[in-house]
Amino acid sequence: MKDYSVIGKRVVSIDKIKKVTGAAKFTADLFLPGMLHGKALRSPYAHARIVNIDTSQAERLPGVRAVITGQEIPRVKFGLTKDIRDQYLLAVDKVRYVGEEVAAVAAIDEDIAEEALRLIKVEYEELPAVFDTESAMKEGAPQLHEHVERNISPQGVIHFGDVDKAFAECDHIYEDRVADAKVSHGQMEPYAALATYDPTSGSLDMWAPNQSPFTRRRALSNVLQMPVVKIRYHNVQMGGAFGGLSDPFPAEFIAALLSIKSKRPVRVAYSREETLIAIRHWPSVVVEMKVGVKRDGTILAIDCKLTLDGGAYMSSSGLAAFQSYMHLEALYRLPNVRYEGIRAYTNKTPSSMHRLQAYQLAILEEMLLERIAEDLGLDSVELRKQHATQPGDILPSGTHITSFALPECIDKAVAVSGYREKKGKLPPGRGIGIACSGSYTGFAMGFRLNSSAQVKFNEDGSCSVFSGCMDNGQGNESMLIQIAAEVLGMPMENIELIAGDTALTPQDPGTYSMTAAFVSGNAVRLAAADAKQQILEIAMSMIGVPANDLEVKEGRVFAKSSPEKGIRIESVVREAWRRGTAVQGRGSYTPPAISEHGWADQTTAIRGQRGITYTDGTTVAEVEVDQETGVVKVLNVWQAYDCGFALNPMAVEGQWQGAAGQMLGRTLFEKHAWDEKGRLITDSFLDFRMPRSSDIPKVSTFIVESIDPRGPFGAKEVGINAGGGVGPAIVNAIHDAAGVWIKEFPITPEKVLAALEEKEGGA
Amino acid sequence: MKDYSVIGKRVVSIDKIKKVTGAAKFTADLFLPGMLHGKALRSPYAHARIVNIDTSQAERLPGVRAVITGQEIPRVKFGLTKDIRDQYLLAVDKVRYVGEEVAAVAAIDEDIAEEALRLIKVEYEELPAVFDTESAMKEGAPQLHEHVERNISPQGVIHFGDVDKAFAECDHIYEDRVADAKVSHGQMEPYAALATYDPTSGSLDMWAPNQSPFTRRRALSNVLQMPVVKIRYHNVQMGGAFGGLSDPFPAEFIAALLSIKSKRPVRVAYSREETLIAIRHWPSVVVEMKVGVKRDGTILAIDCKLTLDGGAYMSSSGLAAFQSYMHLEALYRLPNVRYEGIRAYTNKTPSSMHRLQAYQLAILEEMLLERIAEDLGLDSVELRKQHATQPGDILPSGTHITSFALPECIDKAVAVSGYREKKGKLPPGRGIGIACSGSYTGFAMGFRLNSSAQVKFNEDGSCSVFSGCMDNGQGNESMLIQIAAEVLGMPMENIELIAGDTALTPQDPGTYSMTAAFVSGNAVRLAAADAKQQILEIAMSMIGVPANDLEVKEGRVFAKSSPEKGIRIESVVREAWRRGTAVQGRGSYTPPAISEHGWADQTTAIRGQRGITYTDGTTVAEVEVDQETGVVKVLNVWQAYDCGFALNPMAVEGQWQGAAGQMLGRTLFEKHAWDEKGRLITDSFLDFRMPRSSDIPKVSTFIVESIDPRGPFGAKEVGINAGGGVGPAIVNAIHDAAGVWIKEFPITPEKVLAALEEKEGGA
Repeated sequence: MKDYSVIGKRVVSIDKIKKVTGAAKFTADLFLPGMLHGKALRSPYAHARIVNIDTSQAERLPGVRAVITGQEIPRVKFGLTKDIRDQYLLAVDKVRYVGEEVAAVAAIDEDIAEEALRLIKVEYEELPAVFDTESAMKEGAPQLHEHVERNISPQGVIHFGDVDKAFAECDHIYEDRVADAKVSHGQMEPYAALATYDPTSGSLDMWAPNQSPFTRRRALSNVLQMPVVKIRYHNVQMGGAFGGLSDPFPAEFIAALLSIKSKRPVRVAYSREETLIAIRHWPSVVVEMKVGVKRDGTILAIDCKLTLDGGAYMSSSGLAAFQSYMHLEALYRLPNVRYEGIRAYTNKTPSSMHRLQAYQLAILEEMLLERIAEDLGLDSVELRKQHATQPGDILPSGTHITSFALPECIDKAVAVSGYREKKGKLPPGRGIGIACSGSYTGFAMGFRLNSSAQVKFNEDGSCSVFSGCMDNGQGNESMLIQIAAEVLGMPMENIELIAGDTALTPQDPGTYSMTAAFVSGNAVRLAAADAKQQILEIAMSMIGVPANDLEVKEGRVFAKSSPEKGIRIESVVREAWRRGTAVQGRGSYTPPAISEHGWADQTTAIRGQRGITYTDGTTVAEVEVDQETGVVKVLNVWQAYDCGFALNPMAVEGQWQGAAGQMLGRTLFEKHAWDEKGRLITDSFLDFRMPRSSDIPKVSTFIVESIDPRGPFGAKEVGINAGGGVGPAIVNAIHDAAGVWIKEFPITPEKVLAALEEKEGGA
Repeated sequence: MKDYSVIGKRVVSIDKIKKVTGAAKFTADLFLPGMLHGKALRSPYAHARIVNIDTSQAERLPGVRAVITGQEIPRVKFGLTKDIRDQYLLAVDKVRYVGEEVAAVAAIDEDIAEEALRLIKVEYEELPAVFDTESAMKEGAPQLHEHVERNISPQGVIHFGDVDKAFAECDHIYEDRVADAKVSHGQMEPYAALATYDPTSGSLDMWAPNQSPFTRRRALSNVLQMPVVKIRYHNVQMGGAFGGLSDPFPAEFIAALLSIKSKRPVRVAYSREETLIAIRHWPSVVVEMKVGVKRDGTILAIDCKLTLDGGAYMSSSGLAAFQSYMHLEALYRLPNVRYEGIRAYTNKTPSSMHRLQAYQLAILEEMLLERIAEDLGLDSVELRKQHATQPGDILPSGTHITSFALPECIDKAVAVSGYREKKGKLPPGRGIGIACSGSYTGFAMGFRLNSSAQVKFNEDGSCSVFSGCMDNGQGNESMLIQIAAEVLGMPMENIELIAGDTALTPQDPGTYSMTAAFVSGNAVRLAAADAKQQILEIAMSMIGVPANDLEVKEGRVFAKSSPEKGIRIESVVREAWRRGTAVQGRGSYTPPAISEHGWADQTTAIRGQRGITYTDGTTVAEVEVDQETGVVKVLNVWQAYDCGFALNPMAVEGQWQGAAGQMLGRTLFEKHAWDEKGRLITDSFLDFRMPRSSDIPKVSTFIVESIDPRGPFGAKEVGINAGGGVGPAIVNAIHDAAGVWIKEFPITPEKVLAALEEKEGGA
């Protein structure tokens, strides 16, 4: 371990104080002089043709400044990539889910805006709808989109090795199926978008919670047919994202169009109900998996099929249909894999990417591993270690593994939890379970994966770092400042960060696919190193010490060989100005060898470095199952994960505790429900049951560092993977406690009781 | 002349449309949520000791959120440089002019703030005051500042050659004196400052009209004892500056302190009266000059003394006391020069720098040249040409003249005005006059003269340019975009400028001392050239053409030898990202060889490159003098000036027309007046008479280009120098029309009548 000054220390992320004191201003808290309030009229039907819209009464209502419908919008669809764009900013001709935006108004206050919505007369012709993937994919099912037969969007098969041949060589084949519910990501911040168009300059300023301002700007530029340089996404305070805010929402286009039409700033602020209805969901998934093993437990083949409920529009959930594969191939050595991901359109809220693509897949895989071990009389811990991917491995897709510490994580989790002492030996109704998880770090297509950064210095030796990276709440801002401070040999408080603003900051891929620390962090590291090199060269000529003998610490450049010879950074900065050679750092990072293929055409496997690097780790959970009521209580969670290097251990632990909480909710509580007409019933936080603090057990975290050779100071990712083991560890722990395997999620008391009854009935 | 695509073209500056449509938002138009209104209590006495301040009643007034007095402020004085800091942000112990800020309040509206001011009880002990420089410098005069004896602040002598010896060799010596009035710069925008302090982060955001956000930030950092990196000056729309907004005003410190104390945003918006009373003035000056010549008109020596009325505090007007010398030495070849500049404190509004330091000096010099020519029977036009400074000259101070086109300017102005045909030959009451003017371009001390710039690209090939330069209204923003567009081979509309914001843009000296085009322009040119070089290198590898055969035009890189081989900039930008080598331009420019000495200790001459480069030119004015009323009407002005290269001829002409209007007002109309207690009488635009559009004649402008070797594309300055000839040309024209020399300014009808009477009396 190197002797670092700033990184590796526990740092309170700068957004946290603002959030806990209430000083943080979210998009819905912003207002601009003369601002109007925008509201969207939503479809009451899950599937219907729009026959006519009459806005004349609404337009005459005093206080209404603009009304728009799908008839007057640019006929340009949006979506992640060109080949999968399927949504207009307002419904044109047809609506596809209850809640879809049909028209919008801007008025001088929210009451008038709502009244105006009531005055818009829409004539619909109802169409038959489909609400689940099985029905949607049947021949003759109601079709949501033209040219998308059987509503399959997209479908892809990845096949490495020879799965059929391998299964034929297996001694045992295990096969099962799990399914879960469509849920909301549960961002605490209700969605909002603020737009202001300046007719004099033709420029559009935007504020909206987002995981990538550059992606949003591109989408607006495309849909509104405005030059990129005329659109500015400002940095905003974020109240959570979890993958669900990766793409633009109709609200942003609506706010922009209403502002252009009214020549006034327009804010569209969603209620909690609207947020739950119209902000993209986490897709429900059915996973079917077949695992073939030799007698000694060696896994020869896996065949796996995922079916996702994508809702009415694609958004980025096409990625979700495939990215589970990247988790699957990373964790264990698997010589033969067939993977199929299908995403089907249904007449429900669109689904998007989400925090953990492989959640359901991991549950089934880790459940099957337990059953295999039990069945063959093997130690499931050893079985996992035996198959663990190792640094230097080349995955089936061709990806090189540069760092991986799974056996260490397994050992750590087993040791600290007392797993071996407890497994099968806890009092009745209590059980312990183990599970592993693997994830890729960083993924994107083509040029968009680049992050660039800049550093500029002030006359007192302080500096500003420019990065396009957004902070969704995980502490990215402090993380980038830490990296810059470490490289530059400066205290963190002397560094300001300008982040996530398309006008001010260079290109950044966005804070998803786990790229922030690795990609944006590397860009900041390079920009800071560039500035440092300039500082050393100028200092060298000022104090007459060779650059390779110079070091910077706490803002002072000094000779390593005689530390009393030194000069403050501010003197160097000023001297540079005198010479006309300002200290201006720049850095740019693009991970190597990412495939250039789009996702939608990946019906056949492609080879290449699929993820930049991979993380891994192990969760152990201890639960109590009330055999009378079926209530599952999680008593303890131990998280031992490999994050490469912990830039800020406090933030790492926070992410792992948060991931445990979120996945515990996903596993035990969360579930959206619709009535027979496709209307969301669970449209409040009373009805949509997320975990409360009383549901969260003590989560103990253990950092395992593998020091990735390409990560900034060896860092990889911490936001995603540690959630992956939580669900399956709980499932395995319930089996240890009660002898039942639960395969439908969330694990409600009813399902536990049913499983217990079935077990007793079967026994 | 090279074949340029963007520069040299007539471009409407981007701020103009906003201004003429009323869309422009100035600082007083801004508001922030929860904003309070700040007001300052002003001294009713010109000079008094503060015995006691009781704010208790004001603090109890409902709606008042903060009250501050000089008792609780940081005891740190502000001023341009360390050695001349003499002012607290609120008066401490003593007030020194009527209108000085004594206390301040922040309240929920302006009425309550005003009422609170009335409730503050201040007990003063009046002191004797001085209102003119002559009285102020007498032994035993009331002293404004401790340790500043006879109120002289500062005094400096510059002496080159041997003036006394030269005078002894002269055949003729001419000597006279002119004096003018203290006036306001007359910015159309009333002054305002908006501050918001965030107690969570400890950061302070500021908006205020300013000529240099970096200078302001330094001052706030120093006075409020806050780190530079915690203070942000935002870019603001400016309603004129003319040198008068070079330094911070108490309003900014007051707004900041009130915001810190109230934890709310605070805006201090001055009325027109407050702006005229408390925003720094253009000092009045008495110029005494002695010119020694040989019989043939050869000038052997000049002895010149300036006495400035500096008002109660120094600000930057210490510079004004010396910078006239730089104008003096630049215009004509002068082998022996003695120059003394004295600035005296008086109990009036502080004076600052101003648009044209040498205005009064030029009037006297050009008047004496006319008298010398007349007296010796010489042609005054030829006399000027004979003495004109030439490129390659080294000035007495050691400054190298890199470009200078004075003879061409003289010839042009003479030809287009019909000067030779009209001089002495116009009908009675009409006359024509000629005068020349010279100015330095760019001046500053040490590291602060550096400007740095950056360029970042977007995925569509558009880019953003970052420069700390402010646009006071002269069109700097468009000028910088033009330079970047020309270098990069892109249309202007594909370039956004981020300017004049301390958080976002690199160091810049500020828009004064005529540095914008030369210094900031060069920095942008270098940053754009750096980006272009990167573009060419990547394009080279993409299309297989050597970089030296590549050119960029209208966003396309192509081979000069075969123009069909080409690629769009956006493709290059994306390819750079793919390679992890983003196109990020950076540039930094510091003019060479500026003296490092501070101004206040320049009691002896220093040698070195005093100005970066020099401009020159000639004004001819035609006037009508009503012999009955004494009213002078300017009928025509011809401006032939050397701007190096006209980056935007429309902006150049606008500056020269504006300069003519402003100096016409200064010469004929403007004058502040005080009552016997030192209270400003002329505190409105009714009483303070600036020229109206009906006063402004046709101003014909003629661009003479000398192509400076170091200027960006040869450009120098256009904002200042063309005003310098206007006053003396009018004076000389009045003499041609009416046979009188006016030596007191402004030239009111009374003064003309008095001169006419004196002439007739004397005749």
